[in-house]
Amino acid sequence: MLTIVIDMMGADKGVEPLKEGVKNFLNDASFNDAKLVLVGNEKDLEEFKGNQRVELVPSKDILPMEAGALESMRMKTSSMNIAVDCMVQNHYDAVVSAGSTGGFISLATIKMKMIEGIERAALVSPFPTRIGKQVTVLDIGANNENSAYQIFQFAQMGAIYSRLVMGVEHPSIYLLSNGVEEKKGSPEGKEAYQLIKQSGLEGFKGNIEGRDALRGEADVIVTGGYAGNIFLKTSEGMAVIMSELIKEAFYRNLSSKIGYVFARKGFKEMKKKMDYKSFGGAMLLGINGVAVKAHGSSDAYSFYCALKVAYRMSKEKIVEKIKIAVSSMKQGE
Amino acid sequence: MLTIVIDMMGADKGVEPLKEGVKNFLNDASFNDAKLVLVGNEKDLEEFKGNQRVELVPSKDILPMEAGALESMRMKTSSMNIAVDCMVQNHYDAVVSAGSTGGFISLATIKMKMIEGIERAALVSPFPTRIGKQVTVLDIGANNENSAYQIFQFAQMGAIYSRLVMGVEHPSIYLLSNGVEEKKGSPEGKEAYQLIKQSGLEGFKGNIEGRDALRGEADVIVTGGYAGNIFLKTSEGMAVIMSELIKEAFYRNLSSKIGYVFARKGFKEMKKKMDYKSFGGAMLLGINGVAVKAHGSSDAYSFYCALKVAYRMSKEKIVEKIKIAVSSMKQGE
Repeated sequence: MLTIVIDMMGADKGVEPLKEGVKNFLNDASFNDAKLVLVGNEKDLEEFKGNQRVELVPSKDILPMEAGALESMRMKTSSMNIAVDCMVQNHYDAVVSAGSTGGFISLATIKMKMIEGIERAALVSPFPTRIGKQVTVLDIGANNENSAYQIFQFAQMGAIYSRLVMGVEHPSIYLLSNGVEEKKGSPEGKEAYQLIKQSGLEGFKGNIEGRDALRGEADVIVTGGYAGNIFLKTSEGMAVIMSELIKEAFYRNLSSKIGYVFARKGFKEMKKKMDYKSFGGAMLLGINGVAVKAHGSSDAYSFYCALKVAYRMSKEKIVEKIKIAVSSMKQGE
Repeated sequence: MLTIVIDMMGADKGVEPLKEGVKNFLNDASFNDAKLVLVGNEKDLEEFKGNQRVELVPSKDILPMEAGALESMRMKTSSMNIAVDCMVQNHYDAVVSAGSTGGFISLATIKMKMIEGIERAALVSPFPTRIGKQVTVLDIGANNENSAYQIFQFAQMGAIYSRLVMGVEHPSIYLLSNGVEEKKGSPEGKEAYQLIKQSGLEGFKGNIEGRDALRGEADVIVTGGYAGNIFLKTSEGMAVIMSELIKEAFYRNLSSKIGYVFARKGFKEMKKKMDYKSFGGAMLLGINGVAVKAHGSSDAYSFYCALKVAYRMSKEKIVEKIKIAVSSMKQGE
């Protein structure tokens, strides 16, 4: 039996989409061996009362979206704080939240503690690519600023994640940069390049530009958190804009609508391929536990996907595997 | 009469697309009052001999794409070095190159000199947006690292550029960041936020995320050069990927091809709207002259657009207007 603790408050669109996501997860036979602990407003969660696989933990306060580290720790009555505590104290398997990213990172990092030897946690997420396969990108925003050594550690963690979670036997690892040449990059990026190169990290292929990052050559893309966040939101934003423009092009007039009837199959496949929502969430790597941050704007489907990610991470004992790999990597130095 | 000096060497796809672009420019009656000085291999440019509006300046050497500041200054025989010298010595109006970006920035900055009071030059380019209008983004990659004060100056220059060149009377100005809240951003970004706010820059609206940057609210987006370059290449890369996927969805089978016949009009409009190539190039702001860097991978159309940009900048006496505005802004402090 696995137990996933879920913060049911603080999502942009309120509790309803989260509840739908939870129901879909509970109804999916693949996850029959999972128990859910729902932390939130009791009234909102009444319909789950009596469900054998669900435990309810009451909470009334929402951590504000813009909460920083201090505020998230101080506000002990927030659903997020209670959810993380509940997971840590009961040694449950995972915690999921769609609330404040900054708050979640702070709470998870402070309460679960860092894996020994890791300087900074990184937020990691699979991205869609041109050719359908997914690429693992980190850090997409756990940090505002990273040293070369921290970026180097992200490369190590990313490689492990790609092998163990994404199932890529020999991942191709790239540093996100403003040019492909070795001397390109931010000051800390250039230094990280040298650290990775000197470490002999298997599969390290050098720099990659934002232009080529999602074409499918890379299995792992490593970056500091600030640039990674710009990369995430820009690529996602542009995908959304293009999708909206496609819709408009088809809804233009009768002729274009007829065109849609003939062409829709390919466009549905395309939509599926480039759907950021289906990845559901981002995992915090480098800490002693599975912590999945669902999109703040989660709908039912993407929240369901976030729960699926948390389930798989727990089932695969990812944290244990990263610990072993990191410690053996350190010994190998 | 205006005179534009063109570096005809060093583009990714060789001289042919540049020649086509030059011919299109010469054949466009709107630019009848422009003379062109073409710097390149004489053999390649033979067909322009005898054209009253063209002067040829021979050069044989190409500055390598990855050339840094030192190398670009040292290689005095490169077409780019000769082109910039030719513009400066003859007090011509503009210089255009599709060669090494780093080399061009170094040569233009060193030889044309900075505008008094400006610490760093910025590469500025209009971007397409969701609603059709263009947004001015800077710096998209002239710098690897910028201080808060430099980013603050980019905001000033961007505001002026948007008003005078893009014709936006009251531009909305945003800082690119990893969140909309005032306290979000890289350390230097947060400091720049305060400098801009304290300066009372008209139209400053705060932070914007990559996700919303191209939706059309912003007229100017300000960022340090490293994040700006990631933003540029990521949004462009994603637009290219989506365009390729649209093509594939229509070329799938007979049904989808029929669909295209019915729907093509809207998709052609969409393509035009999101076409990065039509912007042709990026202008170096903050120096004493018009310097336009065309895309390295320029095709005939985009190179023609780069020439058009150089023409307009010269015609509008942009540099003079920025000088006046910057000096009056300084007095106003």
